[in-house]
Amino acid sequence: MATTKVAFQGEKGAFSQVAVHQLLGTKVAVVPCPQFEDVFQALDRAQVDAAVVPIENTLHGSVLENYDHLLKYELPITGETNVRIVHNLIAMPGVLWKDVRRVYSHPVALSQCRRFFARYPHLEKVPYYDTAGSVKMLAESRPPDAAAIASAIAAEIYGGKILRRAIEDDHRNFTRFFLLRRKNDVPRLPKTSKQAYKTSLVFSTRNVPGALFRALSAFALRDINLAKIESRPLRGKPWEYLFYLDLYGRVNEERVANALKHLAELSDFQRVLGCYPRGA
Amino acid sequence: MATTKVAFQGEKGAFSQVAVHQLLGTKVAVVPCPQFEDVFQALDRAQVDAAVVPIENTLHGSVLENYDHLLKYELPITGETNVRIVHNLIAMPGVLWKDVRRVYSHPVALSQCRRFFARYPHLEKVPYYDTAGSVKMLAESRPPDAAAIASAIAAEIYGGKILRRAIEDDHRNFTRFFLLRRKNDVPRLPKTSKQAYKTSLVFSTRNVPGALFRALSAFALRDINLAKIESRPLRGKPWEYLFYLDLYGRVNEERVANALKHLAELSDFQRVLGCYPRGA
Repeated sequence: MATTKVAFQGEKGAFSQVAVHQLLGTKVAVVPCPQFEDVFQALDRAQVDAAVVPIENTLHGSVLENYDHLLKYELPITGETNVRIVHNLIAMPGVLWKDVRRVYSHPVALSQCRRFFARYPHLEKVPYYDTAGSVKMLAESRPPDAAAIASAIAAEIYGGKILRRAIEDDHRNFTRFFLLRRKNDVPRLPKTSKQAYKTSLVFSTRNVPGALFRALSAFALRDINLAKIESRPLRGKPWEYLFYLDLYGRVNEERVANALKHLAELSDFQRVLGCYPRGA
Repeated sequence: MATTKVAFQGEKGAFSQVAVHQLLGTKVAVVPCPQFEDVFQALDRAQVDAAVVPIENTLHGSVLENYDHLLKYELPITGETNVRIVHNLIAMPGVLWKDVRRVYSHPVALSQCRRFFARYPHLEKVPYYDTAGSVKMLAESRPPDAAAIASAIAAEIYGGKILRRAIEDDHRNFTRFFLLRRKNDVPRLPKTSKQAYKTSLVFSTRNVPGALFRALSAFALRDINLAKIESRPLRGKPWEYLFYLDLYGRVNEERVANALKHLAELSDFQRVLGCYPRGA
């Protein structure tokens, strides 16, 4: 059997690669892409078999761009996973803790380690385009006084060693990732399952008072629990919105199917983006 | 009377300055700040009398960071306005359209003028940190072959001329801005008014099925129309959310006051962020 090819955004060793391994194991071929849209395109054009994209982070919120791509590309969500974002200080072999003066990483990662930098004020923060990419740069150019902040897997891939583990301020820093496939590769849903499922959908309401309340009634009146709601601007209709909902349930359960029929009566537009086992 | 000082993010001539003039006229002293949080801090520390910040754009959606600052700083919203984002190609005097080879601007502005660049493929796009800042740079370093994409007001401020007007792909590109004051400077609300008002608030629900539906019932059952809902992660409680709502109505109208009392019964936390005349 051919190795599954999986696209993600960022360099090898990015937190997205941690998500890939959580979702599909380690025996896959990873295909790093520069931009989020490249990831969707690679899957759409069948250059890869699957794609993994971040959708929200518990500190920073939604990755808005990926909501727009989910709508545009119609690549079904078939899985989700949550990755704890653990930042490690990584240096190349031979560079000791006492040698480190400069620390490279993505600005968001640097900003998530404020307490660490406050404790060691002699360390200069150097913004870089990517967390794993900063470790890759160390491996290539071997500065004698520099370290990087990235995932443990980035240290492993580029031959770095971890000088300080878990230096992030807030350990409740998780990113939720979606696994995407093409339509013909979606696994069949079970008729019954002990495993909890989620369903993600997008809809727009008519622009009338109480429209969102009525739309949500389709779920609330059937005791269907919502995990998340996100709004995005509707292109071409200033100050109108699309709503993205994640609910607990499978589309082939009667109450969920009925709720979707009910929502269709109340909405201008509606599409199921995927139905998948709830992530760990 | 002393001139009103108003802080905004970006260089002089930024679209935020257009919003400042729409909200407060042109006889104000503008105080440009590097970051959004600097704008909130300048007002909080009474270094300025007012602040203007973008909150959403009809193409790109919410400015998530500013929602978080609204919660943290407790600086009331006292006004709103919508600015149409018109991108102009601007060059310094002496640089003619036929001379232009490079075009500087913020990456978002460059990406909003795709059709223009497709039509003139000899023009090189050069990403810069700010739209108005790219015009400022032209004024300072006078490259003979470069232009910038920015607001008409940026051309005026830095002595540039507009070579091509309104080169953005989508003319339905609007940004909504909030005017913020300190608590003691909030204008008294009228008891009755022909002017439509909006009220912005933030709340969190208990994490139980149907919680958001019930929260929205406080408004829907009183025929109070919502303009916008936004969710943001709740710090320290992974996968729980704060909701930001904009509704049509004044907090001193009975039905709005009752709705807020009703919401208080259903929510863990609730705060009114401001009540202000609806923007043009």
